[in-house]
This record gives sequence, C-alpha cells and structure tokens, in this order.
Amino acid sequence: MIKKIVGNIDFLENLRGKSASFALAISTTKTCDIDGLTQAGIPGFIYLTPTLDAEFLCSGEVRSLDNIAETPKGVPTPALISRAVHLLKSYKKLEIFDLGAKVKPKLDYFEQYSFGIEPSCSIEDGADIEAKKIFDLGEKFASEYELNSDYLILGESVPSGTTTALTTALALGYDCKDKFSSSFKDTPDSVKQKVVKKALANLAKEDKLFEKLSKVSDNMLIFNAGFVVGASKRGLPLVLAGGTQMACVLLIANRFASNINSKNLGLFTTKWIAEDENSDIKGLLEMLDFKVNAFYADFDFALSEHPALKLYDQGEAKEGVGAGACLVYGLLNGLSKEDITRKVENFLG
Amino acid sequence: MIKKIVGNIDFLENLRGKSASFALAISTTKTCDIDGLTQAGIPGFIYLTPTLDAEFLCSGEVRSLDNIAETPKGVPTPALISRAVHLLKSYKKLEIFDLGAKVKPKLDYFEQYSFGIEPSCSIEDGADIEAKKIFDLGEKFASEYELNSDYLILGESVPSGTTTALTTALALGYDCKDKFSSSFKDTPDSVKQKVVKKALANLAKEDKLFEKLSKVSDNMLIFNAGFVVGASKRGLPLVLAGGTQMACVLLIANRFASNINSKNLGLFTTKWIAEDENSDIKGLLEMLDFKVNAFYADFDFALSEHPALKLYDQGEAKEGVGAGACLVYGLLNGLSKEDITRKVENFLG
Repeated sequence: MIKKIVGNIDFLENLRGKSASFALAISTTKTCDIDGLTQAGIPGFIYLTPTLDAEFLCSGEVRSLDNIAETPKGVPTPALISRAVHLLKSYKKLEIFDLGAKVKPKLDYFEQYSFGIEPSCSIEDGADIEAKKIFDLGEKFASEYELNSDYLILGESVPSGTTTALTTALALGYDCKDKFSSSFKDTPDSVKQKVVKKALANLAKEDKLFEKLSKVSDNMLIFNAGFVVGASKRGLPLVLAGGTQMACVLLIANRFASNINSKNLGLFTTKWIAEDENSDIKGLLEMLDFKVNAFYADFDFALSEHPALKLYDQGEAKEGVGAGACLVYGLLNGLSKEDITRKVENFLG
Repeated sequence: MIKKIVGNIDFLENLRGKSASFALAISTTKTCDIDGLTQAGIPGFIYLTPTLDAEFLCSGEVRSLDNIAETPKGVPTPALISRAVHLLKSYKKLEIFDLGAKVKPKLDYFEQYSFGIEPSCSIEDGADIEAKKIFDLGEKFASEYELNSDYLILGESVPSGTTTALTTALALGYDCKDKFSSSFKDTPDSVKQKVVKKALANLAKEDKLFEKLSKVSDNMLIFNAGFVVGASKRGLPLVLAGGTQMACVLLIANRFASNINSKNLGLFTTKWIAEDENSDIKGLLEMLDFKVNAFYADFDFALSEHPALKLYDQGEAKEGVGAGACLVYGLLNGLSKEDITRKVENFLG
C-alpha cells in the first residue's frame, strides 16, 4: 500500500504506529494571479487558497470564503484528503507556518507561527524576496523547533507553486525542464513556459545563489530549504509532504549544504505524482548529492464513484496540503483505502 | 458527530488526537436516600452507585456488590459507555477524586485522591457541608494537580445530584427552575419539588454564599467549582464531563470568581442531555458571565436493538460517569458510533 520512489524502506517501516505533528506552510505569491497558470482555487480568489486550506484542515470549516476552494473543473482541494486522515487517525498536533499568506487564517487554539514574511511578487516581475533572510529564518526555526511527537510532516499550500519550483530549479542549474508537475492534467505549457522564460530573463549571469532565489522563487521553497538544513543538523525526524515542489526544496538545500545528513529525512507524496507521466519526481530526487527516503501512498479513488474524486485519478490536482504524506501516515497507522475514501466522500455529500 | 452547544469550535478541533486523563469525582449525599428521587442505582443501595461506578470504570468489575448498578427499569449505568470508550481508545490515566463516598472503591494501582471529605447529609436537613473548606480544597488541588496528558476530563457520580444541583443554583439566585435534568425520563416532579422546597426553606435571608452552599449543595459541586477556579488561574486544559450538574459547578464558580479565564475550559455532554426537552443546559450555560466551550456527542443507540440501551434513547439515565465527554473523546480519536455501540452491547451479553 506504500511504495518506494528512492531510499531506505526501513526509514518508512520504523514510522509505523508512530505519532506525527503536521505543519502546513502557507504562502501567497502574486505569480498565482497570472491567468490560466494554476487551477488550485477559485478564479479571482486563488490567493485565498492557502488560507482556506489551513482553515479547513484545522477546523473543518472554510471561514474566509463561503465555499471551499474548488478548481473550475470541480476538483476539490487535496485538503479534503489530509483532513479525512486527521478525522480517522489524528495528527498529534496541527499547526500553521505562515510564510506570507495574504489573508491570515481565522483560527483559534491552533498554533500559527508568524515570521513577518510578506507575500512575494510575481516571478515575472522579479519576485523581490529577501532570500537569505527567509532561508536563515527557516534554518534557525528548525534548530529551535520543539517537536511534540515522533516526527514532523511538513506540507504546503502555495498556488502556482510548481511554476516557481520549476523556475527555481532551472535557475539553480538543474537539468529539469520536463520533470516538474502541474495541478492540471493537461499542463498549460504555453502559459507556464512563457512565465518561466520571462522570470529567468530577470537573472543576471553574475547573480549568486541567493540573488537568483530572490528573483524566481517563493517564500515556502526558500524557508523550507533552510528548515531542511537546520533539521538535518540536529537530526530532527522530518517528512516533506508534497511532490515536485518539495523536491525543489531539497534541490535548494542541496546547493547550500554540501553534506546534508538525510538519515531522518523523508519525502512522501501521492500516487498521482509518483506515477505521473508528465513529471519525474524520481529524476529530481536523483539529482541530489544526498539520498532521501521518498515514498508514495498507493492510494487512488478507485473505490469511489464520485465524479469530483474521479478527476484525481484522471490526473487533476494530484497533490497539495500534504495529502500524500497524510495518506502514508494513515496507512502506517492502520487505516484502509476504504476508510479514507468513505471519509473524503462524506465531505462532498 | 460532535455538535456545539455554545463556545468556540476550535477548542474542540484542537483536541483531536490529543491524550486525556479521566478523573471521576465520586460523592454520596444522604439526599439520595429519599424514596423515588433518583433511579441512579439499586433501591436500598443507591449510596453504593458512586463506588460501583468507580470500580467498574477502572477494573471492569463491580466489587462492592454482586450486580452492576441498574435502575428499577433496567437502565444500566452510563459507566458502561465510559468504560467501552476506555477499552477502545484508552484514557492515558484513570483516577478517582473521593469527595465523600460512603464506601471506598476496592481498587488497587489506580490513584484515589482522598481529601478527608465525609458524605453529606440530606439537603432536607440542611446538608451540613463545610462549604468554604471544600471549595478551597478544590481550588488548591487544581493549582497543584499534575496533568500527565494533554487535557483532563473530570466526570462525576453523585446520585440525586441533579436535585442538589437545582437547589444550589436556585439558592444562588439563578432563574433556572425548569432548566435542570433528571435521570428519569418522566421527572418525578412532585417528589423533587418537595425536596427542593424543603431544602430552600432552610436558608436564611442573611446567609452568605458559602452558608447557602453548606445547606443545599453537595461536595462534588462545591469541590469542583473550586477546582474550576484553580484550573482557570493556571490555564489547565479541563473538560467538565457531565450535564446540568456540571453546569451547576460552573454557576457556583461564576459566583466566586469575577473573571474566570475559560479559554482552556470545556463542558462535554450527551445528546440525551443536549436535546432533552425537559431541561435546558444551553440556557444554564448562557447565565454565566464567562464563555464556556460546550459540545455534545451526537451519539445514541439507534444502531442497537438491546432493550436496555433503547431506554437511553427514550430519555432514561441520559448522562453520568462522564459518559458524554468520553463519547466526545472517543469520536475525536477516530472511534465510530458502531465501534462504541458494539462494545457497550458486549457488557450486556
């Protein structure tokens, strides 16, 4: 029920029955306002998606907008999957890393870590991120982070994040043009390629790593790369929860730290990412100078007749809000595919 | 599966997957010897009910009497529900607050806190409780209480407790005549009203708060009111487990502390209480000067054919031994209505 992408299967097996905290890193980039680039949310309100995902994940309610974020085709947010697992086998702690959400989630009781980070600009206009500061914040936070469970699952909600991830990896010199995923089944290559090209044109040959990141990346990627470096230094058990965006987090960390201790570092994602023919997460992870323990949940909606969920199996949405890692966590704790399917269906009525 | 009475839903959501200790406060009042006033136990042995509940909850055995406490109609103690949840998803710690049980529970290993409190007299005869001393004991104990889990569930077993609660709230000046519950479906109003009237007649106009409590209340109500005040001062995460008796605990606390910090304070009860047409827990909670986070388990025995359990759905018993909060705790930890129903049925054979 859980399959390997790369790494050591004992990393995974050792997590059976262990408790996990789930932190959702949310951030807004104006890149997501570019028409047709992402389907992760409601047109005109894409910037709200991270906020709504955080609210729904924690409380079961969408508070900053009346309806839950749905794509134009009616693909619901993967937060439904992450929440369903939480209802069946709760994460020990749910918390938010606010890495520049435009609208703060309306949540009480749940820990929301704020770092004074503002939403970033569009990468078409140079993003304008204080990259070194953000990276250092992430590294420092990881060094101080108090883990109250056996391991930390770190997910993300950043609309248009695969575009900033692709651009970032290209800017850092990785040969990865066709390896990044998209929330679309049929990737809007023309729009995406135009944005990537325009963003890369802002780079100067003499730009150092942080200068490049400042122009073409997003806060989540940079902060989490710092977090990975900080976590690896202290051996914090950490699972990056996501697909090619989280792979990019590792690609960034790889450029800044020559010898990352990845013994306690994992990446868990969905089947829709791992078996996607239009992207190559395995290829991305194999570009790292260190080995990471990457697995995916062999979960799909074959047991459901719900048309909105069948769209996942056709390649829409694929991943986000830590859905893949939440599925792995659920499967490692005795949940069945049927349990999770029924619980997700419950949300849709 | 869990519904709101009043308060902040994030208080509840933040408890998902969290561990809980369960403390059962037991006390005997001679009020329970009044014929026809309560059906919480075996006629002639009503005073044993708290003892038997404590024994069964902790050990699965009734040691101080051969048969488990049943009402004349055959309604089994709600301790069955609290115990069923414990078997499926255990409380981290089970312990007894002995607030004047006539017979000490025969239990080893389980912590039984004793405070030197004697069973109280009948409120018809003036109860004769050292109210200030009991209240102070509760407050001091809360200030020192060592919590070994994420939050404390505090339940009670006090036969005829709704009568002492009603009398207490009336004595403290709350307009609540028709708001208190009863273990009977058809409340024995004539008996109850006679007792209440007789008890209130013992009050003198010049009585101060503690003098009133000394005459018309019970040890559990007074001690726990002090406990609530002490807990709120240190922010101890506390869930009062019960219906209108626990509401009365809050009403008492409300008279003694002008500004209770109720952020970490909850009250969880059953559907049979929350939806009871003959009482009004919501109305009681709305009389408080502070806000409390009150929820109930949307659980009934619709999935059972057992005649003794069907009596719950007809309005008998309703609550006690923390049953409602135990149900909420179970639901927050992934148990289903079916899981719990089957486990309760197992006890009845």
